[in-house]
Amino acid sequence: MTSNALPTVIATLDIGGTKMAACIADASGPLLRVVQSTLKSGKPDTIARQGLRLIDQCCQQLQIDPAALQSVGVSSCGPFELRDGATGFIPPNLCGGLHNGDDLPNDWTFLPLESVLRERFTTVRIANDCVAALHGERTFGTAPANSIYVTWSTGIGFGLCVDGHILNGKAGNAGHAGHMLLSDTSEVLCGCGNRGDLEAMLGGRNFGKQLGKPLEVIFSDAQQGDTHALQVVQEAARWFGRALYNLTTILDTEAIFIGGSVWRHNEALLAPLVQQEITDRFPALTRGVTVQGATLGELVTDMGAFALVLPTMWVNDWRARRAWESLRSESIADTH
Amino acid sequence: MTSNALPTVIATLDIGGTKMAACIADASGPLLRVVQSTLKSGKPDTIARQGLRLIDQCCQQLQIDPAALQSVGVSSCGPFELRDGATGFIPPNLCGGLHNGDDLPNDWTFLPLESVLRERFTTVRIANDCVAALHGERTFGTAPANSIYVTWSTGIGFGLCVDGHILNGKAGNAGHAGHMLLSDTSEVLCGCGNRGDLEAMLGGRNFGKQLGKPLEVIFSDAQQGDTHALQVVQEAARWFGRALYNLTTILDTEAIFIGGSVWRHNEALLAPLVQQEITDRFPALTRGVTVQGATLGELVTDMGAFALVLPTMWVNDWRARRAWESLRSESIADTH
Repeated sequence: MTSNALPTVIATLDIGGTKMAACIADASGPLLRVVQSTLKSGKPDTIARQGLRLIDQCCQQLQIDPAALQSVGVSSCGPFELRDGATGFIPPNLCGGLHNGDDLPNDWTFLPLESVLRERFTTVRIANDCVAALHGERTFGTAPANSIYVTWSTGIGFGLCVDGHILNGKAGNAGHAGHMLLSDTSEVLCGCGNRGDLEAMLGGRNFGKQLGKPLEVIFSDAQQGDTHALQVVQEAARWFGRALYNLTTILDTEAIFIGGSVWRHNEALLAPLVQQEITDRFPALTRGVTVQGATLGELVTDMGAFALVLPTMWVNDWRARRAWESLRSESIADTH
Repeated sequence: MTSNALPTVIATLDIGGTKMAACIADASGPLLRVVQSTLKSGKPDTIARQGLRLIDQCCQQLQIDPAALQSVGVSSCGPFELRDGATGFIPPNLCGGLHNGDDLPNDWTFLPLESVLRERFTTVRIANDCVAALHGERTFGTAPANSIYVTWSTGIGFGLCVDGHILNGKAGNAGHAGHMLLSDTSEVLCGCGNRGDLEAMLGGRNFGKQLGKPLEVIFSDAQQGDTHALQVVQEAARWFGRALYNLTTILDTEAIFIGGSVWRHNEALLAPLVQQEITDRFPALTRGVTVQGATLGELVTDMGAFALVLPTMWVNDWRARRAWESLRSESIADTH
């Protein structure tokens, strides 16, 4: 196979602070997904090399020659940093060398990614996990030219599309809107050092802590009509809606797609409250803006990574057959 | 001249709530700018037709045949609304039919723009005035691929560029970030109905009112070291900086260019405070972000309107000669 030929197989990596997943696909769709805990000790290139090994293990199980792979799409936690023109990342929950990573068994301050993957792949496309997710929703779902993807989970992250262009920014960090300052009175501290930004106030990690109860209990109490729990949820939806209103007025957005565990488990309760908070304001910009659950579910970042490198001629067939729905997922034992 | 030939002359309109300006240019640069008060009574197409007459008057003075014009670039106040695929606008300070326009001598609720201009021009490109300004700064100034233009004046408006693409949004309203909610305690009401958005807090119209003194007096007192005035200015710079930090973390911006009367008269005082407020936060995204005055000064929206329709082959010469610096401006008596 020459480098100009269309690929017969492609690979993806989805790198998170807790788990990493590799997938292989051919024209028929994604074939296998293998998952492993993300390594947290060794040299700074540990994580990128773990990704390469995971792809190899995926190939081995599928009896595919790893040399047939030339393209890899990567969705990764961030933020990203460019060094010598190559994308690496500095996630606070993996880098022990950053001020707020004292509980991690490493002194990492920068993790190379693109430079390592280029040793093996001709085409390497990397996007923040939520940016990748929006590529997924645009390619396989119904997200229109002016749309937002947001995940409300432990953290809160965004992918932003304007005029059909998914935003990257100077180092691929567009969409870090979870670190938008919302409140001038909230004292809750975010991992980034801010007080009163969206993620500090509503990210799953902090939100539960502030309430002194697990998040699931609050939502379940609210669903059963507990007045105090309902107030807490309404207040949270109001802040989340204010953030989405801000993005709508900044970007002139048409549709908002929401994923992540906090949203998925409580969509029926949250959706009308969030919708109301947006459309109550500045009608010229918010009229007709829709809020809905993401369509790709838990595979959204993997499918987003595929969208980054997918040959155009595979797209319609994958969409028509919802090729991702039959994807097999396997856990691989930790190696550390 | 056929419609396929390169234009020999082009026109622009800059439509504001108080004044309207028309310009004509040929390959050598902008030739003449005529200015008139924006009309506020008559039929809803009054303003678009005033624009056409102003262009004709410009042609007449230059002894140019109006039929030679095929392209018009328009920078206009907003917000915009699409009707039958054509851009019109619904500015609250011109439309008496909107709830907050009770002091206006009309009952307008929508002003056609593109549909009227298309009666005369083959090419019509319309942008919000701050979006046009960023087109100007990108074409004639030094604004890089990930940059923001902001005007701090009576109102506060933005143009946003990400990955070299200047954002439009679903109806051309991207950049309405002056209506971003910043404070959960401020009770100041914005023209859009929000409380605690950026424009409510810092727009020249409201800012002075809150203080009970003209804005110019506050800034001049602050420059002379008056402690209270200095506190007020520092607080304002802090809020303005928070808004710019929010946009930087949302868009992964590289450089911010600021214009408008409030900024222009007080840049030396404001710039270091605003810069500090941005770079004190989230270093992965804010490191190296620059804050500076816009380079095109008071002609920024006119030059932005030219940038929308300028033949590519004129650009380098205009830039090299700073062709706009010799532009002659004339006031035309009001017709109402």
